[in-house]
Amino acid sequence: MDDNKNKECTVQFEPSGIKVKVPSGTTLLEAAHRAGIYLSSICGGDGYCGKCKVIINEGRSQSRPSPLLTPEEIRGNIVLACQTKVLSDLTVTVPKSHSLDTSQVLMDADTHILSRLNKQTQEGLFEYDPLVRKLCVEMSPPTVLDHTADHERLYAAIRRQIDAPIMQTGFRVLQKLTNVLREANYKAAVTIGQRGGTTEVIQVEPGRRCKTNYAVAVDLGTTTVVAHLIDLTTAKTIDAESTYNSQMNFGEDYIRRIIYAEQTDAFDQLQECLVDDVNDLIMTMAVRQKVDLEDITAVICAGNTAMVHFLLNLDPTRIRREPYVASVGFVPPIRAAETGVQINKRGLLYCLPSVAAYIGSDIVAGVLTTRIYTKEKLSIFVDIGTNGEIVLGNEDWLVCSSSSAGPAFEGSGIKCGMRAGAGAIESLNIVNGDEIRFKTIGGGHPIGICGSGLLDTLSELFVNDIIDRTGHLKANGDSRLTEGEDGLQFQLVEPRNGHQEIAITQADINNLIRSKAGVFAAIRILMNSTQTKLEDIDAIYIAGGFGNFLNVQRAVTIGMLPDVPRTKLQFVGNTSIAGAKTSLCSQKALETAERIAESMTYFDLMGNPDYMDEFIKAKFLPHTDLSLFPSERNLKPQA
Amino acid sequence: MDDNKNKECTVQFEPSGIKVKVPSGTTLLEAAHRAGIYLSSICGGDGYCGKCKVIINEGRSQSRPSPLLTPEEIRGNIVLACQTKVLSDLTVTVPKSHSLDTSQVLMDADTHILSRLNKQTQEGLFEYDPLVRKLCVEMSPPTVLDHTADHERLYAAIRRQIDAPIMQTGFRVLQKLTNVLREANYKAAVTIGQRGGTTEVIQVEPGRRCKTNYAVAVDLGTTTVVAHLIDLTTAKTIDAESTYNSQMNFGEDYIRRIIYAEQTDAFDQLQECLVDDVNDLIMTMAVRQKVDLEDITAVICAGNTAMVHFLLNLDPTRIRREPYVASVGFVPPIRAAETGVQINKRGLLYCLPSVAAYIGSDIVAGVLTTRIYTKEKLSIFVDIGTNGEIVLGNEDWLVCSSSSAGPAFEGSGIKCGMRAGAGAIESLNIVNGDEIRFKTIGGGHPIGICGSGLLDTLSELFVNDIIDRTGHLKANGDSRLTEGEDGLQFQLVEPRNGHQEIAITQADINNLIRSKAGVFAAIRILMNSTQTKLEDIDAIYIAGGFGNFLNVQRAVTIGMLPDVPRTKLQFVGNTSIAGAKTSLCSQKALETAERIAESMTYFDLMGNPDYMDEFIKAKFLPHTDLSLFPSERNLKPQA
Repeated sequence: MDDNKNKECTVQFEPSGIKVKVPSGTTLLEAAHRAGIYLSSICGGDGYCGKCKVIINEGRSQSRPSPLLTPEEIRGNIVLACQTKVLSDLTVTVPKSHSLDTSQVLMDADTHILSRLNKQTQEGLFEYDPLVRKLCVEMSPPTVLDHTADHERLYAAIRRQIDAPIMQTGFRVLQKLTNVLREANYKAAVTIGQRGGTTEVIQVEPGRRCKTNYAVAVDLGTTTVVAHLIDLTTAKTIDAESTYNSQMNFGEDYIRRIIYAEQTDAFDQLQECLVDDVNDLIMTMAVRQKVDLEDITAVICAGNTAMVHFLLNLDPTRIRREPYVASVGFVPPIRAAETGVQINKRGLLYCLPSVAAYIGSDIVAGVLTTRIYTKEKLSIFVDIGTNGEIVLGNEDWLVCSSSSAGPAFEGSGIKCGMRAGAGAIESLNIVNGDEIRFKTIGGGHPIGICGSGLLDTLSELFVNDIIDRTGHLKANGDSRLTEGEDGLQFQLVEPRNGHQEIAITQADINNLIRSKAGVFAAIRILMNSTQTKLEDIDAIYIAGGFGNFLNVQRAVTIGMLPDVPRTKLQFVGNTSIAGAKTSLCSQKALETAERIAESMTYFDLMGNPDYMDEFIKAKFLPHTDLSLFPSERNLKPQA
Repeated sequence: MDDNKNKECTVQFEPSGIKVKVPSGTTLLEAAHRAGIYLSSICGGDGYCGKCKVIINEGRSQSRPSPLLTPEEIRGNIVLACQTKVLSDLTVTVPKSHSLDTSQVLMDADTHILSRLNKQTQEGLFEYDPLVRKLCVEMSPPTVLDHTADHERLYAAIRRQIDAPIMQTGFRVLQKLTNVLREANYKAAVTIGQRGGTTEVIQVEPGRRCKTNYAVAVDLGTTTVVAHLIDLTTAKTIDAESTYNSQMNFGEDYIRRIIYAEQTDAFDQLQECLVDDVNDLIMTMAVRQKVDLEDITAVICAGNTAMVHFLLNLDPTRIRREPYVASVGFVPPIRAAETGVQINKRGLLYCLPSVAAYIGSDIVAGVLTTRIYTKEKLSIFVDIGTNGEIVLGNEDWLVCSSSSAGPAFEGSGIKCGMRAGAGAIESLNIVNGDEIRFKTIGGGHPIGICGSGLLDTLSELFVNDIIDRTGHLKANGDSRLTEGEDGLQFQLVEPRNGHQEIAITQADINNLIRSKAGVFAAIRILMNSTQTKLEDIDAIYIAGGFGNFLNVQRAVTIGMLPDVPRTKLQFVGNTSIAGAKTSLCSQKALETAERIAESMTYFDLMGNPDYMDEFIKAKFLPHTDLSLFPSERNLKPQA
């Protein structure tokens, strides 16, 4: 069909106008990836999620038939990018739904939520003793009577200020030392970093540079990467930024990405994506705050185990294979430059410790931040992301588990789902049993629903009897209940002024119920295994990228969280970055994180026969056993 | 004169036939350096030592006039290489005196001397606990019930074998870890190295590689670089090799080399010379013993402070300037590859600690080897090299000093002086007051005199009344006393069969006396400063590159060493490499070396007004104050 198989074709993506040259035969998904254009793709290019729809404007292409496209879409030249090969120069339009607004980030909410949390738990807890710091070090110059070598003179001066029994100095620093000290008149700014029990001299500069020292804390999310820029001399966060994880082009969950990397030997490519994201965040903040990259001397990361493996290009393949083992749990501090992360060329990169393949350092950071490890009474910490991780415990013990809840509450796998960004419905209420009211992030016309909105939707549909206890949409004559192209659906927002309708499908509801059931079943397993009764639970902390706001009570209503009094429930936002920042600013906090990680006992649900029982029971709203949710009885009449 | 200034000229050196291309105008000394041909040069190319004589066979050159050339030499086309510019293609003969036989090395003698010394002092002292070692580590593979990450699994297994509270793993090792462990079936050969108080995992290999691990100990001498190849699994030396320090092209003492490097910004060049020498030695031994360079995982160096600075390209310039300060005394372990030393690419390079700018790690190694720091009674350790370093002390205290004795006893600056190599007169006796008998290294015709021969010569000339107490050659009618081209001289060996005569000049004698006076004066200063009496001295150890053999009593006869009974004197050879090897094989020994270096008090003679007094008094044979040398009175009638 094509007479020149190896010819180069230019693909132009609208509305951005970005062009990319690819060999004939390349898929449009791959072309978009090469052009740095984000296309939604849950299945990682396997052709069954139907998320990567684009419109062909001009040029020749070849698409595999797909049941995921309607006849209207096919007539409108809409194709699945992953199933479409480029055959000539092409012009393609990327629908607006792909173009996510990254300016609306979680950080404002995080900052707010955390400052509230900190007031309760963190204040004065860990003293300021950062992993990397600058010391202003003054030495008396050598004399005939004091001919101590420069290096030992420096060590002695450092040790007059801090306790550093074991010290190291890199070769390049040593080589420059004598000249720097003399130019600085023996008054130097010494950057020192903790590497395990060792204190490393990272750089030596003239004394006037004592006050210039920055670091970056990063939350490596499967979906979103968030970074905060911290002034290490004051321990204050001076900027924050977030971006979508570019690895999403290779699958929306990390298992898919690992498979993709294995099948195409794309580990380097996946690392580059993540490193580029981190570098973009750092660069954006550095430019905005007029901070020289050389003055950023540390990066600290928290994230799930797979993301940390991808960032460091550690082998992640055993994470997805029984017995599910990480390459490294306690990642030793390394030079950031070795990973490609661009800060000071001798700056250090730290990772918080993880517990197991499916309990990452983000969860350890959550435990550190909520301080459940310090309390006499029992607490539960739940982090809802692509997976749902649960920790139960107190000052004496901590157990944890990961439910493969799926990313429904991140908006993935949901027809109108989206991440918490501008235009997302973040809260929804049904008033008078009928009228739907909602609030979008940014206040504009709704373009989708984010996690908190989906939780509200599920809860409100249930409380208002639009769905039954199994989650089935009831045929009650409501005109908003229609048979759409994705099956039975309930319209939440009418189409208007060219905007698409917002609806929730039966499949979406089933997805959300599976997720919440997974989380609740995991909580039950942990509680049962530890003989924990409901009344023993003093607090439940819920973290994750739901958005700025979460009506936590509704997580009880749908039966995601156990039925404890409202006062015991708290939405704590992004505790991953909070824990990273705390550890950066206090060696003691990082050591505490290590102790937490060591002490956490992991329950593997995949090997637990009771888990499926609990899961099936939790697939009702709120549960098959209503005695578990006494307070919910008052909310609605029982059918 | 020359119409094409930038033209390339080919210089061919005979008898080796080695050719090099250089731009017109290059000096012959520089051309020889580029060709890798060793030309003797004390002054570093300043034109006043007259050592770099070569013969122009063919081609055009331009020489500055020099008083150091005789009319006969000028007629014979002999020139000073440093004062002669290449103007066309040239053929040049390098006289045999330059071509030093490196096959005759000190190591045989060293090995012999050290084994004797070890029997007395070292046996069973430091237990075998090398800085770098391979552990055979067996782990149980991960299971669902034991999902510890690979890295932590490895650490736990290592810690079952050794005490390693603080561990580090490099990024590259981490990245490969998971695959290596699985390929090895969780039975691995782990190379670990000590870096201060930290234990580093240097490499992880399959279990079958457990027994393959080598290291190299190096003595970085100003004149000679010696290396020993050590099998780390048995702690046995399996080969040894030595070479002349290629930096000699830039000056025979290190102060000249520092000046050269400063004036021409040739620090990199000087480092490369030394690194190349070390690499040559390692490669020679590795090829001979069929050892893969990747299986050499550590190098340990001892040497004077300047040599260590040159090797690591640390700034050495402050060593020669008041207040004489080193960049680094305690060099932290670094990766050998960072310096260009070619062993395993993650292998470590250690340096023994030094005390001061003029008391290097070679002296610390000497103290460690002779164990004077363990004895209740006082000992003196003397190392005669380009400088003469002296240590006095016992288990409670150690004082040390460096006399700028000059390299006379290394054969430098002496008309017929040479280093201990084939053809060197290593011992000399005058029998019946007249007949000169001698022994050469290798037994052949003498071509020069090495340190031990020079010591004998000075002593025998004095005892046989050929020189007086001030060192003046006596006009006693001996036909061997003539006025040579270098002034008054005493012929030791007649010219024969085309071989040159061997003679010692008045200038040589003065040089040797200055050297011995410097050493003795330094000993006196240390003894006086510590109120040490002659009878308090229990042992005097003399180390250095004298040759295989040293008549130590004669060092007393000429007044270099104090007049103690013969049984208290011991020649200990190259204690620098011995100490390096001991430290390599025992962490405890290296820690002891560090304690020794810390505890040694350095006396700066340049700032000591009494030193010049003592020096002037010691410029007599044996001394102005004969009461200091009672035993010498019996040797010859007093004039």
